[in-house]
Amino acid sequence: MSHQQFQKCIDACVACAAACNHCATSCLQEDDVKMMALCIQLDLECAAICRAAAEVMTLSSGYSAHLCRICADVCKACADECAKHDMEHCQTCAEACRRCAEACAQMATAV
Amino acid sequence: MSHQQFQKCIDACVACAAACNHCATSCLQEDDVKMMALCIQLDLECAAICRAAAEVMTLSSGYSAHLCRICADVCKACADECAKHDMEHCQTCAEACRRCAEACAQMATAV
Amino acid sequence: MSHQQFQKCIDACVACAAACNHCATSCLQEDDVKMMALCIQLDLECAAICRAAAEVMTLSSGYSAHLCRICADVCKACADECAKHDMEHCQTCAEACRRCAEACAQMATAV
Amino acid sequence: MSHQQFQKCIDACVACAAACNHCATSCLQEDDVKMMALCIQLDLECAAICRAAAEVMTLSSGYSAHLCRICADVCKACADECAKHDMEHCQTCAEACRRCAEACAQMATAV
Repeated sequence: MSHQQFQKCIDACVACAAACNHCATSCLQEDDVKMMALCIQLDLECAAICRAAAEVMTLSSGYSAHLCRICADVCKACADECAKHDMEHCQTCAEACRRCAEACAQMATAV
Repeated sequence: MSHQQFQKCIDACVACAAACNHCATSCLQEDDVKMMALCIQLDLECAAICRAAAEVMTLSSGYSAHLCRICADVCKACADECAKHDMEHCQTCAEACRRCAEACAQMATAV
Repeated sequence: MSHQQFQKCIDACVACAAACNHCATSCLQEDDVKMMALCIQLDLECAAICRAAAEVMTLSSGYSAHLCRICADVCKACADECAKHDMEHCQTCAEACRRCAEACAQMATAV
Repeated sequence: MSHQQFQKCIDACVACAAACNHCATSCLQEDDVKMMALCIQLDLECAAICRAAAEVMTLSSGYSAHLCRICADVCKACADECAKHDMEHCQTCAEACRRCAEACAQMATAV
Protein backbone atom coordinates (compact mmCIF):
# COMPACT_ATOMS: atom_id res chain seq x y z
CA MET A 1 0.00 0.00 0.00
CA SER A 2 1.65 3.23 -1.15
CA HIS A 3 1.53 6.75 0.23
CA GLN A 4 -0.77 7.71 -2.64
CA GLN A 5 -3.11 4.80 -1.90
CA PHE A 6 -3.24 5.96 1.72
CA GLN A 7 -4.17 9.46 0.61
CA LYS A 8 -7.98 9.20 0.75
CA CYS A 9 -7.84 7.80 4.27
CA ILE A 10 -5.26 10.38 5.40
CA ASP A 11 -7.54 13.12 4.07
CA ALA A 12 -10.52 11.68 5.96
CA CYS A 13 -8.48 11.48 9.19
CA VAL A 14 -7.17 15.05 9.09
CA ALA A 15 -10.62 16.39 8.15
CA CYS A 16 -12.13 14.45 11.06
CA ALA A 17 -9.49 15.66 13.52
CA ALA A 18 -10.17 19.26 12.46
CA ALA A 19 -13.95 18.80 12.72
CA CYS A 20 -13.59 17.24 16.19
CA ASN A 21 -11.40 20.06 17.51
CA HIS A 22 -13.76 22.66 16.03
CA CYS A 23 -16.76 20.85 17.54
CA ALA A 24 -15.08 20.68 20.96
CA THR A 25 -14.24 24.40 21.10
CA SER A 26 -17.69 25.30 19.72
CA CYS A 27 -19.39 23.09 22.35
CA LEU A 28 -17.45 25.01 25.02
CA GLN A 29 -19.24 28.18 23.90
CA GLU A 30 -22.74 26.73 24.07
CA ASP A 31 -25.11 27.90 26.83
CA ASP A 32 -25.54 24.39 28.21
CA VAL A 33 -21.94 23.13 28.23
CA LYS A 34 -22.78 20.32 30.64
CA MET A 35 -25.04 18.71 28.07
CA MET A 36 -22.07 18.70 25.67
CA ALA A 37 -19.51 17.21 28.08
CA LEU A 38 -19.49 13.70 26.60
CA CYS A 39 -19.43 15.14 23.08
CA ILE A 40 -16.35 17.24 23.96
CA GLN A 41 -14.63 14.25 25.60
CA LEU A 42 -15.18 12.02 22.56
CA ASP A 43 -14.17 14.86 20.22
CA LEU A 44 -10.82 15.06 21.98
CA GLU A 45 -10.21 11.32 21.97
CA CYS A 46 -11.28 11.04 18.33
CA ALA A 47 -9.09 13.96 17.25
CA ALA A 48 -6.05 12.46 18.99
CA ILE A 49 -6.51 9.07 17.37
CA CYS A 50 -7.26 10.54 13.91
CA ARG A 51 -4.04 12.57 14.14
CA ALA A 52 -2.12 9.43 15.04
CA ALA A 53 -3.64 7.40 12.22
CA ALA A 54 -2.83 10.13 9.69
CA GLU A 55 0.70 10.41 11.08
CA VAL A 56 1.54 6.73 10.73
CA MET A 57 0.01 6.55 7.27
CA THR A 58 2.10 9.52 6.08
CA LEU A 59 5.12 7.56 7.37
CA SER A 60 3.93 4.56 5.27
CA SER A 61 4.07 2.58 8.50
CA GLY A 62 3.26 -1.10 8.69
CA TYR A 63 1.20 -0.28 11.79
CA SER A 64 -1.26 1.84 9.79
CA ALA A 65 -3.95 -0.82 9.60
CA HIS A 66 -3.83 -1.35 13.36
CA LEU A 67 -4.24 2.37 14.04
CA CYS A 68 -7.04 2.61 11.48
CA ARG A 69 -8.95 -0.19 13.21
CA ILE A 70 -9.01 1.78 16.48
CA CYS A 71 -9.69 5.00 14.59
CA ALA A 72 -12.75 3.49 12.92
CA ASP A 73 -14.11 2.53 16.36
CA VAL A 74 -13.62 5.90 18.04
CA CYS A 75 -14.99 7.69 14.96
CA LYS A 76 -18.18 5.61 15.14
CA ALA A 77 -18.58 6.39 18.85
CA CYS A 78 -17.97 10.09 18.30
CA ALA A 79 -20.35 10.20 15.31
CA ASP A 80 -23.11 8.59 17.38
CA GLU A 81 -22.74 11.14 20.19
CA CYS A 82 -22.44 14.16 17.89
CA ALA A 83 -25.50 13.06 15.93
CA LYS A 84 -27.63 13.50 19.08
CA HIS A 85 -27.09 17.28 19.06
CA ASP A 86 -28.72 19.68 16.58
CA MET A 87 -25.95 22.27 16.44
CA GLU A 88 -24.29 22.65 13.06
CA HIS A 89 -20.81 21.95 14.47
CA CYS A 90 -22.05 18.64 15.90
CA GLN A 91 -23.84 17.60 12.72
CA THR A 92 -20.80 18.52 10.62
CA CYS A 93 -18.55 16.61 12.98
CA ALA A 94 -20.83 13.55 12.94
CA GLU A 95 -20.60 13.50 9.15
CA ALA A 96 -16.77 13.84 9.18
CA CYS A 97 -16.57 11.05 11.76
CA ARG A 98 -18.77 8.76 9.67
CA ARG A 99 -16.67 9.34 6.55
CA CYS A 100 -13.48 8.72 8.50
CA ALA A 101 -14.88 5.57 10.13
CA GLU A 102 -15.69 4.19 6.70
CA ALA A 103 -12.28 5.07 5.20
CA CYS A 104 -10.44 3.65 8.21
CA ALA A 105 -12.49 0.46 8.27
CA GLN A 106 -11.55 -0.14 4.61
CA MET A 107 -7.89 0.60 5.34
CA ALA A 108 -7.89 -1.73 8.34
CA THR A 109 -8.86 -4.70 6.19
CA ALA A 110 -7.04 -3.69 2.97
CA VAL A 111 -3.47 -3.28 4.16
CA MET B 1 22.35 23.30 22.91
CA SER B 2 22.31 19.51 23.13
CA HIS B 3 19.45 17.04 23.55
CA GLN B 4 20.56 16.53 27.17
CA GLN B 5 20.54 20.28 27.84
CA PHE B 6 17.01 20.41 26.46
CA GLN B 7 15.95 17.61 28.80
CA LYS B 8 14.70 19.66 31.75
CA CYS B 9 12.55 21.78 29.46
CA ILE B 10 11.26 18.74 27.55
CA ASP B 11 10.27 17.17 30.88
CA ALA B 12 8.42 20.33 31.92
CA CYS B 13 6.57 20.46 28.59
CA VAL B 14 5.40 16.84 28.61
CA ALA B 15 4.37 17.10 32.27
CA CYS B 16 2.42 20.26 31.49
CA ALA B 17 0.71 18.73 28.45
CA ALA B 18 -0.35 15.75 30.58
CA ALA B 19 -1.61 18.00 33.39
CA CYS B 20 -3.57 20.14 30.90
CA ASN B 21 -5.26 17.14 29.27
CA HIS B 22 -6.07 15.67 32.68
CA CYS B 23 -7.44 19.03 33.86
CA ALA B 24 -9.59 19.36 30.72
CA THR B 25 -11.17 15.92 31.03
CA SER B 26 -11.65 16.41 34.80
CA CYS B 27 -13.30 19.80 34.23
CA LEU B 28 -15.74 18.07 31.87
CA GLN B 29 -16.93 15.95 34.81
CA GLU B 30 -17.55 18.88 37.17
CA ASP B 31 -21.14 19.86 38.03
CA ASP B 32 -20.74 23.37 36.66
CA VAL B 33 -18.96 22.71 33.36
CA LYS B 34 -19.87 26.14 32.00
CA MET B 35 -17.76 27.82 34.68
CA MET B 36 -14.81 25.71 33.48
CA ALA B 37 -15.20 26.43 29.75
CA LEU B 38 -12.33 28.91 29.46
CA CYS B 39 -10.14 26.65 31.58
CA ILE B 40 -10.82 23.71 29.25
CA GLN B 41 -10.16 25.84 26.16
CA LEU B 42 -6.82 27.08 27.49
CA ASP B 43 -5.91 23.57 28.67
CA LEU B 44 -6.34 22.30 25.10
CA GLU B 45 -4.33 25.13 23.53
CA CYS B 46 -1.60 24.82 26.16
CA ALA B 47 -1.37 21.02 25.76
CA ALA B 48 -1.07 21.32 21.96
CA ILE B 49 1.71 23.91 22.18
CA CYS B 50 3.56 22.03 24.94
CA ARG B 51 3.49 18.87 22.80
CA ALA B 52 4.90 20.84 19.86
CA ALA B 53 7.65 22.44 21.94
CA ALA B 54 8.68 19.05 23.35
CA GLU B 55 8.60 17.55 19.85
CA VAL B 56 10.92 20.12 18.26
CA MET B 57 13.30 19.96 21.22
CA THR B 58 13.55 16.16 20.95
CA LEU B 59 14.45 16.74 17.28
CA SER B 60 17.18 19.19 18.44
CA SER B 61 15.55 21.71 16.12
CA GLY B 62 16.87 25.21 15.65
CA TYR B 63 13.27 26.41 15.99
CA SER B 64 13.05 25.21 19.60
CA ALA B 65 13.59 28.65 21.12
CA HIS B 66 10.82 30.14 18.98
CA LEU B 67 8.36 27.43 20.05
CA CYS B 68 9.39 27.81 23.69
CA ARG B 69 8.68 31.57 23.57
CA ILE B 70 5.05 30.89 22.54
CA CYS B 71 4.84 27.99 24.99
CA ALA B 72 5.90 30.23 27.88
CA ASP B 73 3.10 32.66 26.98
CA VAL B 74 0.29 30.10 26.72
CA CYS B 75 1.50 28.37 29.90
CA LYS B 76 1.26 31.66 31.81
CA ALA B 77 -2.25 32.29 30.48
CA CYS B 78 -3.36 28.75 31.35
CA ALA B 79 -1.77 28.94 34.81
CA ASP B 80 -3.62 32.19 35.55
CA GLU B 81 -6.99 30.70 34.57
CA CYS B 82 -6.45 27.38 36.36
CA ALA B 83 -5.34 29.20 39.52
CA LYS B 84 -8.82 30.76 39.82
CA HIS B 85 -10.41 27.36 40.45
CA ASP B 86 -10.09 25.42 43.72
CA MET B 87 -10.27 21.90 42.29
CA GLU B 88 -7.15 19.82 42.76
CA HIS B 89 -6.80 19.15 39.02
CA CYS B 90 -6.82 22.90 38.34
CA GLN B 91 -4.33 23.71 41.10
CA THR B 92 -2.04 20.88 39.95
CA CYS B 93 -2.31 22.07 36.36
CA ALA B 94 -1.57 25.69 37.35
CA GLU B 95 1.61 24.53 39.06
CA ALA B 96 2.70 22.44 36.04
CA CYS B 97 2.00 25.41 33.76
CA ARG B 98 4.04 27.77 35.93
CA ARG B 99 7.00 25.37 35.95
CA CYS B 100 6.77 24.92 32.19
CA ALA B 101 6.48 28.68 31.61
CA GLU B 102 9.67 29.21 33.60
CA ALA B 103 11.60 26.44 31.83
CA CYS B 104 10.43 27.61 28.39
CA ALA B 105 11.23 31.26 29.11
CA GLN B 106 14.79 30.23 30.01
CA MET B 107 15.07 28.09 26.87
CA ALA B 108 13.72 30.91 24.69
CA THR B 109 16.57 33.20 25.69
CA ALA B 110 19.30 30.58 26.14
CA VAL B 111 19.31 28.86 22.75
CA MET C 1 -10.84 35.01 12.47
CA SER C 2 -13.17 32.03 12.32
CA HIS C 3 -12.53 28.31 11.94
CA GLN C 4 -13.72 28.57 8.31
CA GLN C 5 -11.36 31.46 7.58
CA PHE C 6 -8.53 29.36 9.00
CA GLN C 7 -9.44 26.51 6.68
CA LYS C 8 -7.18 27.30 3.72
CA CYS C 9 -4.19 27.60 6.01
CA ILE C 10 -5.09 24.44 7.95
CA ASP C 11 -5.32 22.58 4.63
CA ALA C 12 -1.90 23.86 3.57
CA CYS C 13 -0.37 22.82 6.91
CA VAL C 14 -1.73 19.28 6.91
CA ALA C 15 -0.79 18.80 3.25
CA CYS C 16 2.73 20.04 4.02
CA ALA C 17 3.10 17.79 7.07
CA ALA C 18 2.05 14.79 4.97
CA ALA C 19 4.45 15.73 2.14
CA CYS C 20 7.31 16.18 4.63
CA ASN C 21 6.74 12.79 6.27
CA HIS C 22 6.44 11.12 2.89
CA CYS C 23 9.61 12.85 1.68
CA ALA C 24 11.51 11.79 4.82
CA THR C 25 10.58 8.12 4.53
CA SER C 26 11.25 8.17 0.77
CA CYS C 27 14.66 9.78 1.31
CA LEU C 28 15.48 6.92 3.70
CA GLN C 29 15.07 4.51 0.79
CA GLU C 30 17.38 6.37 -1.59
CA ASP C 31 20.78 4.87 -2.45
CA ASP C 32 22.68 7.85 -1.11
CA VAL C 33 20.88 8.49 2.19
CA LYS C 34 23.74 10.59 3.52
CA MET C 35 23.15 13.21 0.82
CA MET C 36 19.54 13.43 2.04
CA ALA C 37 20.33 13.77 5.77
CA LEU C 38 19.64 17.52 6.03
CA CYS C 39 16.51 17.11 3.91
CA ILE C 40 15.19 14.41 6.26
CA GLN C 41 16.03 16.50 9.34
CA LEU C 42 14.20 19.56 7.99
CA ASP C 43 11.29 17.38 6.84
CA LEU C 44 10.84 16.16 10.41
CA GLU C 45 11.05 19.64 11.95
CA CYS C 46 8.73 21.08 9.33
CA ALA C 47 6.18 18.28 9.75
CA ALA C 48 6.14 18.74 13.53
CA ILE C 49 5.59 22.49 13.30
CA CYS C 50 2.96 22.17 10.54
CA ARG C 51 1.05 19.69 12.71
CA ALA C 52 1.20 22.13 15.63
CA ALA C 53 0.05 25.08 13.53
CA ALA C 54 -2.88 23.09 12.15
CA GLU C 55 -3.75 21.89 15.65
CA VAL C 56 -3.95 25.36 17.23
CA MET C 57 -5.91 26.72 14.26
CA THR C 58 -8.48 23.92 14.56
CA LEU C 59 -8.80 24.96 18.22
CA SER C 60 -9.40 28.58 17.04
CA SER C 61 -6.54 29.52 19.35
CA GLY C 62 -5.37 33.08 19.79
CA TYR C 63 -1.83 31.74 19.45
CA SER C 64 -2.40 30.66 15.85
CA ALA C 65 -0.66 33.67 14.29
CA HIS C 66 2.42 33.09 16.43
CA LEU C 67 2.64 29.44 15.39
CA CYS C 68 2.06 30.35 11.74
CA ARG C 69 4.96 32.82 11.85
CA ILE C 70 7.36 30.03 12.88
CA CYS C 71 5.71 27.61 10.46
CA ALA C 72 6.30 30.00 7.54
CA ASP C 73 9.99 30.14 8.44
CA VAL C 74 10.57 26.40 8.72
CA CYS C 75 8.55 25.77 5.54
CA LYS C 76 10.78 28.19 3.62
CA ALA C 77 13.92 26.47 4.95
CA CYS C 78 12.56 23.01 4.11
CA ALA C 79 11.44 24.13 0.63
CA ASP C 80 14.91 25.51 -0.12
CA GLU C 81 16.59 22.24 0.88
CA CYS C 82 14.08 19.96 -0.90
CA ALA C 83 14.35 22.06 -4.07
CA LYS C 84 18.04 21.07 -4.34
CA HIS C 85 17.14 17.42 -4.96
CA ASP C 86 15.66 16.12 -8.22
CA MET C 87 13.62 13.25 -6.78
CA GLU C 88 9.86 13.59 -7.23
CA HIS C 89 9.18 13.32 -3.47
CA CYS C 90 11.55 16.23 -2.84
CA GLN C 91 10.10 18.41 -5.59
CA THR C 92 6.56 17.65 -4.43
CA CYS C 93 7.53 18.44 -0.87
CA ALA C 94 9.22 21.70 -1.89
CA GLU C 95 6.01 22.80 -3.58
CA ALA C 96 3.86 21.87 -0.55
CA CYS C 97 6.28 23.75 1.70
CA ARG C 98 6.14 26.87 -0.48
CA ARG C 99 2.33 26.87 -0.51
CA CYS C 100 2.26 26.39 3.27
CA ALA C 101 4.86 29.13 3.81
CA GLU C 102 2.71 31.55 1.84
CA ALA C 103 -0.53 30.61 3.61
CA CYS C 104 1.11 30.81 7.03
CA ALA C 105 2.79 34.15 6.29
CA GLN C 106 -0.63 35.59 5.40
CA MET C 107 -2.17 34.12 8.53
CA ALA C 108 0.63 35.48 10.70
CA THR C 109 -0.15 39.04 9.68
CA ALA C 110 -3.93 38.70 9.23
CA VAL C 111 -5.03 37.44 12.64
CA MET D 1 -8.08 2.99 35.68
CA SER D 2 -7.33 6.55 36.77
CA HIS D 3 -5.01 9.21 35.37
CA GLN D 4 -2.61 8.52 38.24
CA GLN D 5 -2.61 4.77 37.52
CA PHE D 6 -1.77 5.59 33.90
CA GLN D 7 1.16 7.72 34.99
CA LYS D 8 3.95 5.15 34.85
CA CYS D 9 2.94 4.11 31.36
CA ILE D 10 2.56 7.72 30.20
CA ASP D 11 6.06 8.43 31.51
CA ALA D 12 7.47 5.43 29.64
CA CYS D 13 5.75 6.52 26.41
CA VAL D 14 6.97 10.12 26.48
CA ALA D 15 10.50 9.01 27.42
CA CYS D 16 10.45 6.53 24.53
CA ALA D 17 9.15 9.11 22.04
CA ALA D 18 11.95 11.48 23.08
CA ALA D 19 14.60 8.76 22.83
CA CYS D 20 13.32 7.74 19.38
CA ASN D 21 13.39 11.30 18.04
CA HIS D 22 16.85 11.86 19.50
CA CYS D 23 18.05 8.55 18.02
CA ALA D 24 16.64 9.46 14.58
CA THR D 25 18.32 12.86 14.42
CA SER D 26 21.57 11.40 15.79
CA CYS D 27 21.49 8.61 13.19
CA LEU D 28 21.19 11.30 10.50
CA GLN D 29 24.56 12.65 11.61
CA GLU D 30 26.39 9.31 11.46
CA ASP D 31 28.95 8.70 8.70
CA ASP D 32 27.06 5.71 7.34
CA VAL D 33 23.48 6.98 7.32
CA LYS D 34 22.34 4.25 4.93
CA MET D 35 23.11 1.59 7.52
CA MET D 36 20.80 3.47 9.92
CA ALA D 37 17.87 3.90 7.51
CA LEU D 38 15.66 1.19 9.02
CA CYS D 39 16.53 2.39 12.51
CA ILE D 40 15.44 5.94 11.61
CA GLN D 41 12.22 4.69 10.00
CA LEU D 42 11.26 2.63 13.06
CA ASP D 43 12.26 5.49 15.37
CA LEU D 44 9.77 7.75 13.59
CA GLU D 45 6.95 5.21 13.64
CA CYS D 46 7.62 4.35 17.28
CA ALA D 47 7.76 8.01 18.33
CA ALA D 48 4.45 8.75 16.59
CA ILE D 49 2.68 5.83 18.24
CA CYS D 50 4.20 6.54 21.68
CA ARG D 51 2.96 10.14 21.44
CA ALA D 52 -0.50 8.89 20.55
CA ALA D 53 -0.59 6.36 23.40
CA ALA D 54 0.51 9.02 25.90
CA GLU D 55 -2.07 11.45 24.50
CA VAL D 56 -5.05 9.10 24.88
CA MET D 57 -3.93 8.05 28.36
CA THR D 58 -3.71 11.69 29.49
CA LEU D 59 -7.29 12.04 28.22
CA SER D 60 -8.24 8.98 30.34
CA SER D 61 -9.61 7.50 27.14
CA GLY D 62 -11.29 4.12 27.00
CA TYR D 63 -9.19 3.44 23.89
CA SER D 64 -5.94 3.58 25.86
CA ALA D 65 -5.51 -0.19 26.09
CA HIS D 66 -5.94 -0.55 22.34
CA LEU D 67 -3.29 2.07 21.63
CA CYS D 68 -0.95 0.52 24.19
CA ARG D 69 -1.24 -2.88 22.50
CA ILE D 70 0.04 -1.40 19.21
CA CYS D 71 2.60 0.69 21.07
CA ALA D 72 4.05 -2.40 22.76
CA ASP D 73 4.48 -4.03 19.34
CA VAL D 74 6.22 -1.11 17.64
CA CYS D 75 8.41 -0.55 20.71
CA LYS D 76 9.58 -4.17 20.54
CA ALA D 77 10.38 -3.85 16.83
CA CYS D 78 12.24 -0.59 17.34
CA ALA D 79 14.17 -1.98 20.33
CA ASP D 80 15.29 -4.98 18.28
CA GLU D 81 16.59 -2.79 15.45
CA CYS D 82 18.27 -0.23 17.74
CA ALA D 83 19.96 -3.00 19.71
CA LYS D 84 21.89 -4.02 16.58
CA HIS D 85 23.81 -0.73 16.55
CA ASP D 86 26.59 0.12 19.00
CA MET D 87 26.09 3.88 19.13
CA GLU D 88 25.04 5.25 22.50
CA HIS D 89 21.88 6.89 21.09
CA CYS D 90 20.77 3.52 19.68
CA GLN D 91 21.50 1.61 22.88
CA THR D 92 19.74 4.25 24.96
CA CYS D 93 16.77 4.16 22.61
CA ALA D 94 16.64 0.36 22.69
CA GLU D 95 16.43 0.49 26.47
CA ALA D 96 13.68 3.16 26.43
CA CYS D 97 11.75 1.09 23.87
CA ARG D 98 12.02 -2.06 25.99
CA ARG D 99 10.77 -0.24 29.10
CA CYS D 100 7.89 1.26 27.14
CA ALA D 101 7.00 -2.09 25.54
CA GLU D 102 6.77 -3.64 29.00
CA ALA D 103 4.68 -0.81 30.47
CA CYS D 104 2.35 -0.78 27.46
CA ALA D 105 1.93 -4.55 27.45
CA GLN D 106 0.85 -4.38 31.10
CA MET D 107 -1.54 -1.53 30.35
CA ALA D 108 -3.01 -3.36 27.37
CA THR D 109 -4.14 -6.25 29.56
CA ALA D 110 -4.89 -4.29 32.74
CA VAL D 111 -7.43 -1.73 31.54
